[in-house]
Amino acid sequence: MGVDPGTNILGYSIISSDKNTIKILINGVIQLKKTDDHFIRLGIIYTRLCALIKEYQPTAMAIEAPFFGKNVQSMLKLGRAQGAAIVAGASNNLEVIEYSPRRIKQSITGRGNASKEQVAKMLQSTLQLTALPKYFDETDALAVAVCHINASKKIAVTGKQFKNWNDFIQANPGKVK
Amino acid sequence: MGVDPGTNILGYSIISSDKNTIKILINGVIQLKKTDDHFIRLGIIYTRLCALIKEYQPTAMAIEAPFFGKNVQSMLKLGRAQGAAIVAGASNNLEVIEYSPRRIKQSITGRGNASKEQVAKMLQSTLQLTALPKYFDETDALAVAVCHINASKKIAVTGKQFKNWNDFIQANPGKVK
Repeated sequence: MGVDPGTNILGYSIISSDKNTIKILINGVIQLKKTDDHFIRLGIIYTRLCALIKEYQPTAMAIEAPFFGKNVQSMLKLGRAQGAAIVAGASNNLEVIEYSPRRIKQSITGRGNASKEQVAKMLQSTLQLTALPKYFDETDALAVAVCHINASKKIAVTGKQFKNWNDFIQANPGKVK
Repeated sequence: MGVDPGTNILGYSIISSDKNTIKILINGVIQLKKTDDHFIRLGIIYTRLCALIKEYQPTAMAIEAPFFGKNVQSMLKLGRAQGAAIVAGASNNLEVIEYSPRRIKQSITGRGNASKEQVAKMLQSTLQLTALPKYFDETDALAVAVCHINASKKIAVTGKQFKNWNDFIQANPGKVK
């Protein structure tokens, strides 16, 4: 289970993998703007993630470690949202693991400084998705979930495996602007 | 229930009140230094607070809003600890309320800029405690719990009620250095 916890929108992605393939079980977002009450938002994050965990029974929760560029007030709010997500995992006995944005990009594209669009396109290609998720938050959650699979199993994802982003561009000249 | 969530130690205090008196049901701390794993710490916060809520059945959780003087990395960690505590309350249907340090000090001592020691001494006097809790974190949790009682009921706490810190000093010359 990959989670991208934000204060306004939370992206999640639950995937399964066997030796050679990764399958997406569910992708989605939790919209938090419906209520202005920050504490109710945290309750919603916890309750919704617990329900998803109960339904799909993932064994691990991977989250993206944030950049530290924001101000302290934003970081506190983000920390609270992350805390709510993490305890949803921890209280359901999931292993919780954090990956840096650089590590995630590296894992997906072979390049630590790849753009969001490059990560998305690489995910679409390697997972053979007909379309990308509607929200970037879902794609980010999918990316950290795939990063965890790669880190824990070192398996090849489906289809042709590219060593790095340059290989991917050469093999898919039409896919990248 | 008052909670003072920190990343190394968490203070809690569960109190009950009727018309004229406030009674401490339990004060304590959760030591988090036992493990270096930050995610396990969050799980401990959540599990321990849920157990306390189940046992003592408080109706509300009051927490102290932090100062924003720390760096972004500290704020993220603190936010996560707070998030874990807040969802323990929210997922057990407790009303969760946040009070600023200034508001808490004002509520207890009549002065928004009172020192920690002044708040502690005032609590000891008004609650007729033979001794103060061992940790400041417990006292802080007790303070925010009492602040919430004062805010929601506007009742007089036990014993002599002091309008402000100066009144208290005059009535208790030996208690304050």
